[in-house]
Amino acid sequence: MSTVSEADRPGGGEAGNQGAAGPGPITEQEIFSSHEGGKLSVEITAPLDSQRALSIAYTPGVAQVSRAIAADETLAARYTWTSRLVVVVSDGSAVLGLGDIGPKASLPVMEGKAALFKSFAGLNSIPLVLDTKDPDEIVETLVRLRPSFGAVNLEDISAPRCFEIEQRVIEALDCPVMHDDQHGTAIVVLAALTGAARALGRELAPMRIVIAGAGAAGVACANILLAAGINDVIVVDSKGIVEPGRSDLNGVKQDLAARTNPTGRRGGVAEALDGADVFLGVSAGKVPEPLIATMAPNSIVFALSNPDPEIHPEIARKYAAVVATGRSDYPNQINNVLAFPGVFKGALDTGARRITEKMKIAAAEAILSVLGDELSAEKIVPSPLDPRVAPAVAEAVARVAKEEGVA
Amino acid sequence: MSTVSEADRPGGGEAGNQGAAGPGPITEQEIFSSHEGGKLSVEITAPLDSQRALSIAYTPGVAQVSRAIAADETLAARYTWTSRLVVVVSDGSAVLGLGDIGPKASLPVMEGKAALFKSFAGLNSIPLVLDTKDPDEIVETLVRLRPSFGAVNLEDISAPRCFEIEQRVIEALDCPVMHDDQHGTAIVVLAALTGAARALGRELAPMRIVIAGAGAAGVACANILLAAGINDVIVVDSKGIVEPGRSDLNGVKQDLAARTNPTGRRGGVAEALDGADVFLGVSAGKVPEPLIATMAPNSIVFALSNPDPEIHPEIARKYAAVVATGRSDYPNQINNVLAFPGVFKGALDTGARRITEKMKIAAAEAILSVLGDELSAEKIVPSPLDPRVAPAVAEAVARVAKEEGVA
Repeated sequence: MSTVSEADRPGGGEAGNQGAAGPGPITEQEIFSSHEGGKLSVEITAPLDSQRALSIAYTPGVAQVSRAIAADETLAARYTWTSRLVVVVSDGSAVLGLGDIGPKASLPVMEGKAALFKSFAGLNSIPLVLDTKDPDEIVETLVRLRPSFGAVNLEDISAPRCFEIEQRVIEALDCPVMHDDQHGTAIVVLAALTGAARALGRELAPMRIVIAGAGAAGVACANILLAAGINDVIVVDSKGIVEPGRSDLNGVKQDLAARTNPTGRRGGVAEALDGADVFLGVSAGKVPEPLIATMAPNSIVFALSNPDPEIHPEIARKYAAVVATGRSDYPNQINNVLAFPGVFKGALDTGARRITEKMKIAAAEAILSVLGDELSAEKIVPSPLDPRVAPAVAEAVARVAKEEGVA
Repeated sequence: MSTVSEADRPGGGEAGNQGAAGPGPITEQEIFSSHEGGKLSVEITAPLDSQRALSIAYTPGVAQVSRAIAADETLAARYTWTSRLVVVVSDGSAVLGLGDIGPKASLPVMEGKAALFKSFAGLNSIPLVLDTKDPDEIVETLVRLRPSFGAVNLEDISAPRCFEIEQRVIEALDCPVMHDDQHGTAIVVLAALTGAARALGRELAPMRIVIAGAGAAGVACANILLAAGINDVIVVDSKGIVEPGRSDLNGVKQDLAARTNPTGRRGGVAEALDGADVFLGVSAGKVPEPLIATMAPNSIVFALSNPDPEIHPEIARKYAAVVATGRSDYPNQINNVLAFPGVFKGALDTGARRITEKMKIAAAEAILSVLGDELSAEKIVPSPLDPRVAPAVAEAVARVAKEEGVA
């Protein structure tokens, strides 16, 4: 599968089926009324209610600040909001599980993302949705807007375009850039897998991990697992195991084929899963119970397709020692919000010009570090609402940024 | 003069010379410390502190809103923030009186503008500064970003590019677009001239008005005065009276030459001012006292160059019956903030797709309407801080929008 599905954004459970307290199931009316007028507001940091305040914030006082920045452009980071501003950029081509619904329809999701940046990391964030799907035009637009922001969160851009676009935006801009559907997911998956292994008293490195899905999330998960020292990673797309013998692979998958599946397996998900330690579902597909039954003892199943996991968690639990989903109504909810607020906060706090693989791995460790003794097979990652997570992630990311000299 | 000067943005008085109460003169330190971190903040309209709130504002609840907009794009205006969002767009090419200081250095001004939109009209507003001065690229960028906002305030773009860019953006986008340096200034000038005439018990229509400056503000002032029924308007640039006999005029000035100066005067500001009723300075230049002395009895002098008016208001007052400047430390401060918040609010309130000349003229009348019996030669427009102005302007603009069928 080459498009990003809802599974690329592990999220809450189904509406109307929440474990959290609340006045009954969430109704459609409640959802729509809470979206009236949007979910964001621009506020001023000081009142403009006197001539003096006007003369400071606007003419003539502001001219002194503009003159100072004209003389030394680095001062823009200090005297404007841009160094704490993340733009959430999408073309609306791969929104949740809804697919290519276009930029306007993607806006509620992007506003939600911006709201999460504020809630969890205190960062300012605005959605910029683009009425173009052309990679050249997307990159060019962000280059032109570069003085307006401090970081770019690419969101819900379909694969395989998302890989090229992210790479080119990173190369073109001297600021943190991350496609969250890829790396936010990958970071949280690495944290959760590490947590699962620890809860089981096992080592992660020697495990065989089968990733179902070769879209944005699948590719990024494969990459972070390889970077974290896991050797036996197998990626399966809708046509079968991604391996060099296939003639139908795009460039990204050819590259994956060369770096994964070290034992040279061929076939489909059945051949991949036989005896595997981990099933990681980041597709919109299903995996039959009998195949899960063929996995190794003490296995781990992450069925992250949302709202319908690749296998129901209660079925998976019959075979696996640890089960995680994107849903909030079962244990072990895998949700990107554990990663992206802290990652961007850490990068911006330290003035990092890049988000490196080491920063991502450090973010995963930081997510897990919050749990301490709370870690168990039923709690392999903190709750998405845990307020300790983002500061811990930010601190870890900032530390690595300094060590790596990208700050 | 073909560049926009500080005069295009009538503003407060000089820092350190404020009439308003405050703890002494404004210091540089006060200005810079109040700009630390910028002047804007993105806030969320409802807390995201529970699983229920997350499930409504983000996945999975948000998918219902996205799906609804995908089925009917007009719903984006209702369920996202965009229909109340004004982007303040600049390339930093004509910032205050500072000139072409670039997009980064223009940011504090654009943040200030966005803050004024919030303070006076309750609108959300964000600065988007562009690292290009190419009109094609500016227009193209806004077209690509179109789904992200509800209106465009073009700001501090140098003349004559600003005319072409505004026209092309208006044609390309189905939303309110206004270059404030042109039309905000023109609206407030029309309001103030009307107020001055009324305070003097005179008719505005038969007056001879000399505009010094043929940049963004000068051209727009000429246009609104003509549209408001004033016939004898003369525009003077740095080379003299703009008239068809000149061979050095760009397209915009050739057009002006054809529509102004009905008595066919030639020469410079001296020839223009001799016997004139109104001097309107929107340049960075000066006008000598002896020329002001040649104006008709009971004359009106608007010396809007800021912070240094074309003639000191106390000198002008020796000859003129009404004097106005951009400064807050003299009576009759002409400030764009009287116009743009209400104009955009009225346009957005009513879903207008255009800001027409009639809407601008109605805005000028609304500004003045607020004064009622307070009108005098020393108070020809309300204070920039008068909270009655923006709602009155918005109501008038919305009414005309409906009448004209642009809503």
